[in-house]
Amino acid sequence: MAQLNEIIHQPARLRIMAILAAVSTERQVTFTYLKCALSLTDGNLGAHLHKLEEAGYLTITKTFVRQKPQTYVEITETGRQVFDEHRQALKEILEGG
Amino acid sequence: MAQLNEIIHQPARLRIMAILAAVSTERQVTFTYLKCALSLTDGNLGAHLHKLEEAGYLTITKTFVRQKPQTYVEITETGRQVFDEHRQALKEILEGG
Repeated sequence: MAQLNEIIHQPARLRIMAILAAVSTERQVTFTYLKCALSLTDGNLGAHLHKLEEAGYLTITKTFVRQKPQTYVEITETGRQVFDEHRQALKEILEGG
Repeated sequence: MAQLNEIIHQPARLRIMAILAAVSTERQVTFTYLKCALSLTDGNLGAHLHKLEEAGYLTITKTFVRQKPQTYVEITETGRQVFDEHRQALKEILEGG
């Protein structure tokens, strides 16, 4: 039976991973971009990112751009693999019944 | 933004709805079949079915077949529609990022 990853399956985290997985490796996604794209509060998004980072599915990098703090979020190789497996499991469930 | 239905999104309930939606209208799904297909306990499956029934997504019919109690579960029109919408929303999220 196709296994669903409970960490990724949660709606907000599924969206976060989908956005990160769709981004080409040259582009970087900012915290602010995710916040706007997903209509989440700082605290809510931060908690979800923390959970995904703990699982090793993404990395969070805090830096300064023109003296302003900027946070970048990037999917890891593990994250990409786990997301692909989850997407495949969902596909099997939705199509196979 | 594609909306995910929180009642249906829960892994066990997503599988239940996928099975019910895939079944032709002439065939009936029993409680026992779902229990085996999903590897759930009676109590756990019962709780998920109750939640989906409360939402109006399925009907539960208890009857007797050759003097043995039998429970049938069937998706409603609303359930089918809501599941289709959810499947579409998932597809958009997974493909669009």
